[in-house]
Amino acid sequence: MRDFTASLRPAQPDGPTMLSQERMRSGINSEQLAQHLLAKNGFLERQKKILDVLSKHSIFIKQNQLNLARPDRYYLALARAKQIRRLVAEHKWDRLDVEMAEYLVDEMSPFALNSTMFLKSMQQQCNEQQRACWLPKINSFDVLGCYAQTELGHGSNVKGLECEARWDQQTKTFVIHSPTLTASKWWNGSLGRTANHAVVVAQLLLPSGAGFKSYGPHQFIVQIRDMKTHQPLDGIVIGDIGPKYGYATMDNGYMLFQHHRVPHSALLSKYTQVDPNTGTYTKPQVQQVVYGTMTAIRADIVEHARLILARAVTIAIRYTSIRRQFKDRDESNPSAPELVVLDYPTVQMRLFPLLATTFALHYTGLAMRTLYESNQETISRNDFSALAETHALSSGLKALCTMLAADGIETSRRALGGHGFGGGSGMIPLNSDYLSKPTVEGDNYMITQQTASYLIKAMERAKRQPSAQCDATQQMYQEYLSGRAKAPLKLLGGDDDDAAIVRVFELRACVVGHQVYQAKVENGRGWTSLMVELHELSIIHSEMLLVRNYFTALQTRSGPPLSDKTWDVMRLMFKLFSLKTILTRPTEFLASGLITVDEMARLKDEVAYIMAKLRPHAVSLVDAWKIPDYLLQSALGSYDGDVYNRLFKQAHEMNPLNKLTFNTDWRSEEVVLGEGVQASQRKIEELVWGNVSPASRSNLSRL
Amino acid sequence: MRDFTASLRPAQPDGPTMLSQERMRSGINSEQLAQHLLAKNGFLERQKKILDVLSKHSIFIKQNQLNLARPDRYYLALARAKQIRRLVAEHKWDRLDVEMAEYLVDEMSPFALNSTMFLKSMQQQCNEQQRACWLPKINSFDVLGCYAQTELGHGSNVKGLECEARWDQQTKTFVIHSPTLTASKWWNGSLGRTANHAVVVAQLLLPSGAGFKSYGPHQFIVQIRDMKTHQPLDGIVIGDIGPKYGYATMDNGYMLFQHHRVPHSALLSKYTQVDPNTGTYTKPQVQQVVYGTMTAIRADIVEHARLILARAVTIAIRYTSIRRQFKDRDESNPSAPELVVLDYPTVQMRLFPLLATTFALHYTGLAMRTLYESNQETISRNDFSALAETHALSSGLKALCTMLAADGIETSRRALGGHGFGGGSGMIPLNSDYLSKPTVEGDNYMITQQTASYLIKAMERAKRQPSAQCDATQQMYQEYLSGRAKAPLKLLGGDDDDAAIVRVFELRACVVGHQVYQAKVENGRGWTSLMVELHELSIIHSEMLLVRNYFTALQTRSGPPLSDKTWDVMRLMFKLFSLKTILTRPTEFLASGLITVDEMARLKDEVAYIMAKLRPHAVSLVDAWKIPDYLLQSALGSYDGDVYNRLFKQAHEMNPLNKLTFNTDWRSEEVVLGEGVQASQRKIEELVWGNVSPASRSNLSRL
Repeated sequence: MRDFTASLRPAQPDGPTMLSQERMRSGINSEQLAQHLLAKNGFLERQKKILDVLSKHSIFIKQNQLNLARPDRYYLALARAKQIRRLVAEHKWDRLDVEMAEYLVDEMSPFALNSTMFLKSMQQQCNEQQRACWLPKINSFDVLGCYAQTELGHGSNVKGLECEARWDQQTKTFVIHSPTLTASKWWNGSLGRTANHAVVVAQLLLPSGAGFKSYGPHQFIVQIRDMKTHQPLDGIVIGDIGPKYGYATMDNGYMLFQHHRVPHSALLSKYTQVDPNTGTYTKPQVQQVVYGTMTAIRADIVEHARLILARAVTIAIRYTSIRRQFKDRDESNPSAPELVVLDYPTVQMRLFPLLATTFALHYTGLAMRTLYESNQETISRNDFSALAETHALSSGLKALCTMLAADGIETSRRALGGHGFGGGSGMIPLNSDYLSKPTVEGDNYMITQQTASYLIKAMERAKRQPSAQCDATQQMYQEYLSGRAKAPLKLLGGDDDDAAIVRVFELRACVVGHQVYQAKVENGRGWTSLMVELHELSIIHSEMLLVRNYFTALQTRSGPPLSDKTWDVMRLMFKLFSLKTILTRPTEFLASGLITVDEMARLKDEVAYIMAKLRPHAVSLVDAWKIPDYLLQSALGSYDGDVYNRLFKQAHEMNPLNKLTFNTDWRSEEVVLGEGVQASQRKIEELVWGNVSPASRSNLSRL
Repeated sequence: MRDFTASLRPAQPDGPTMLSQERMRSGINSEQLAQHLLAKNGFLERQKKILDVLSKHSIFIKQNQLNLARPDRYYLALARAKQIRRLVAEHKWDRLDVEMAEYLVDEMSPFALNSTMFLKSMQQQCNEQQRACWLPKINSFDVLGCYAQTELGHGSNVKGLECEARWDQQTKTFVIHSPTLTASKWWNGSLGRTANHAVVVAQLLLPSGAGFKSYGPHQFIVQIRDMKTHQPLDGIVIGDIGPKYGYATMDNGYMLFQHHRVPHSALLSKYTQVDPNTGTYTKPQVQQVVYGTMTAIRADIVEHARLILARAVTIAIRYTSIRRQFKDRDESNPSAPELVVLDYPTVQMRLFPLLATTFALHYTGLAMRTLYESNQETISRNDFSALAETHALSSGLKALCTMLAADGIETSRRALGGHGFGGGSGMIPLNSDYLSKPTVEGDNYMITQQTASYLIKAMERAKRQPSAQCDATQQMYQEYLSGRAKAPLKLLGGDDDDAAIVRVFELRACVVGHQVYQAKVENGRGWTSLMVELHELSIIHSEMLLVRNYFTALQTRSGPPLSDKTWDVMRLMFKLFSLKTILTRPTEFLASGLITVDEMARLKDEVAYIMAKLRPHAVSLVDAWKIPDYLLQSALGSYDGDVYNRLFKQAHEMNPLNKLTFNTDWRSEEVVLGEGVQASQRKIEELVWGNVSPASRSNLSRL
């Protein structure tokens, strides 16, 4: 049968027409804004350069990915990871080039751990001989490493790890052993099928009298697989832990050791040593420098969060600018067109604050990066004083920013209506892959306690030393305690709304910080009983930082220049972000008397007013984030707006399920028409049992 | 190599020990509570009966599902759907039995539409001859139907559909045609690969003068596939739309018509007729009875939401009762055990309100069902007066309840820490499959407008007729307007906290209802500009209904009896649900003066107090929901608590990826070790291009 669909076109006006109208009616120069946001380290040029190379290799085409079984996703990802290494060699890509390639390919590479956690640990913990031995092999990707810390029974609490490394003075070896099932290494990326070496974190046990004494967790470099056969070495069991929420391409693994011996040189010994002749232990120096690295990682996370959220918002704003649904209820003309969905305040209310959040995350990421860099400089002069504050505040920001991004993705997706569920939305990998972020690199409910703990101590110091030279947090607290910090007379309509907004965020942070301090220190309440308040304190303080960093950026206008008109829009975005944050969590503002109930009502009107002012610029603003279509992988969100042709082609030309014709007669045990009952039965058995041998099937009901 | 892992055990105390301690220390009789919650229509006995049958057929084993490609998920699901039909025949299962089987198998069956939307439409819209012709074939599953309403370009707004059915007087046929690409039917369940018939919704066009006149959307029964070859009929293009967020087993489809002729009898003609001789149209009677069906569907959705949320909370509460992490910070004894995670207030704060929400949803589902049944009775007496209120309120409840459940699943998942991402959590299908619910059966931001519209009219009537006999909503408004409705003197610590809580929820609903009424009616603000307020009004009114229905259930204590002790715990749950709802959205309570800022602070303490009181009962309470392990599919949440053995076995024995050994040398183009470069290249090509023929590959870059 001739396929008549080839000649069909979408109803008019179509997406490209709608989007170009949107682009014309905003005076925002999105190229200029893109430079302002993304010029750093040549991001935009690099994005273009790497995209050009990737587009020449069909292995990087993504359209079929959602149809693949998980083992095939790993297969393809490994092939891509290897291809990228070959491109690195061919094009002399540097570290930032590789990171860009991985950002654009947009899946966790099975090689990812080798050049991140594994390499970092080796760089930081190896002594000179160890560095000389290992780093060249790691950098050439001959040694493929992973970082084996977390265990089946232990995640965040490293002290609780069960895997042990017992020093055997006789043979001068460490015996690595998993005494229980829960001691199994678990979740470790690149371990399952890829790595041939691992940094293993194990409890160091040294002889002491008749027994052994534990010195806590230490890092060991361990070869885990044979370099030729790629099989686990004797005494080691390794595997991939199976399918997960997202991250299909990463082989997160498990690993158990049975009295596995490694040489003395396996203990990473820059800071700690065990004397090979006596088995005596040398204490590590204080490793505050590690905190610095954590801060850099968290700045990465915040900057990553802004681009992830920008991706979701780009898709949502472009598509809702094209999608039309229902006429205005007050419209009496029956031939009036349906409204564009983005004109609905219920849609704006969900999407515009998220767009504003991308900018808030941007300026805070920038501020964190700057702080980190200035810290690195003072650290190089052996001055660690600024580290505690930077590290503590970066914990809270990591928690808040990943939560904003993770929740924002889903909010954007729900604004898409039915097509938000389809593979053509581009939201599926975004959602599944990002949802891990509130948990990994420090669970959001755990690390906020570090922030709160720091804030309580800062308040304590501010009380004790009301005028001492100190860090910025303590200084803010000192001003508050002295009564010098005054609330603005009114939040909106005063001399300077923006400054007044920052002020109420600061004062709220002080009020809540002081309350928690009183509960903990003055009233002696237990830490655990205060956890909810501690978590909230961290969130509230971090919200203040986001607002203040954004405000500071508006004041200093540093970085590549913007037109005044664009700065005006960026100011509106600041105000929207701040006011929406107040409306979402108003209690403490009201309770502390910083905002009155009447003012709260006016905030809502102001938000509505701002959203109307922003409406014409929405598409231009998301354009400025310059997310390439290749990365979006979204029929709904592509730059040209050709939504419906793309959705249809993807379904009609690319769906492997459509190649099969089924036998739908329930009386027959045949499934695909014509394959015969026996073939169907064999296939069903294969699908149900996977790789479970008939012998082990009786176990299955226990699983 | 011998596998030494077989002899390893998890560290002590293990999960089974922990869970049995939890069960012992609560005095709640979970069997009794299960009867109270689930005895209706023999749910619990039926669950057991059907589970027994399913467990005898290996085709229903689920453990390998997460490893399967989407086409294989459909393959298996079709085989299961057919098997269930054979079991229906064998065991004489009735409708509720089949629904239970589908609930337990827990995937959308490719046959699902045949006995739901397709059958319902045919029952409601067929005239007598049509019923006689079609219903027997549908009930025997020889005709396999689907419901083809939504289109690529049109979802909620049925009036905007583009597919047309043009009456050809000459041949006495309707010509069904898709004039554009956006007219393609889209999303329709069971259409893609399964159905051989469809109820097609198309614009009815009848000759009028020289042209045609549109009579709006009408339903047609259309054969779409050949009964033998299962190929689409000439002039029809059909396919599956491709992978989605969740629902892998359902073949949501697309369909286009090219001047496809169907006989006069295709128009479903119970209410509307076209005279075959003259082409004249007979107007439909008012179809208010349809609203009744919608209410029943929405009661189903609310009852389903409670079991879905119960499933997430069961997993989360059992696992966090087993998982230990970190010592109490104030604990000075170094050998003190780590705390059970559920003892952290930050975990309780997230999970206990969700547990309370399952009960709130339960009592509201029950109330909706009762209301629906009493409405059916009055409708049978041709009295439609109660329909408008029931329908309008059911819209708001659908929106609120699906949002609570969808967000609650993710909140539960994040409380699980790292293992929450693993396939062993059981949260992956729960999350992906449920996220459609806020959108389908009426997008939550669309249908709340129906509720708000009704509430504004009720307020209008209450103003005009302050003492007329009327429905419950108007009555509440009348009392409020008359000033008879008094706020409680204080929210907590008065004569009856629970009644005071209901009262402030009612008053808030009245205050906000009145504000929106004033804005719309008295100040004449446009509908679209008020959408945010309208949405909020619906949410606020629905929250009141949830609180009031729960309160009423505590007062009447109807249904299977509970001990006083259990009722006490259920009352605590009521209070927790209500107070947490206030704390989450405090603005309007504060703005209306119903709750003072000082009281708000006391609410937080009260919530903390309640959570501590509930802690010992958490596991027993989730046990009462009786979610079978087969349905949970969760190593973390299984009844026996044997978390770590299950997680390990699943990874170690069932992961197909672990059967493959890879070539990780990046210089080689071989991917699986030993398969050779050519085999790798062929496999990569297959993975990247799917079923796209080499000829069409140049199109791909456009996709």
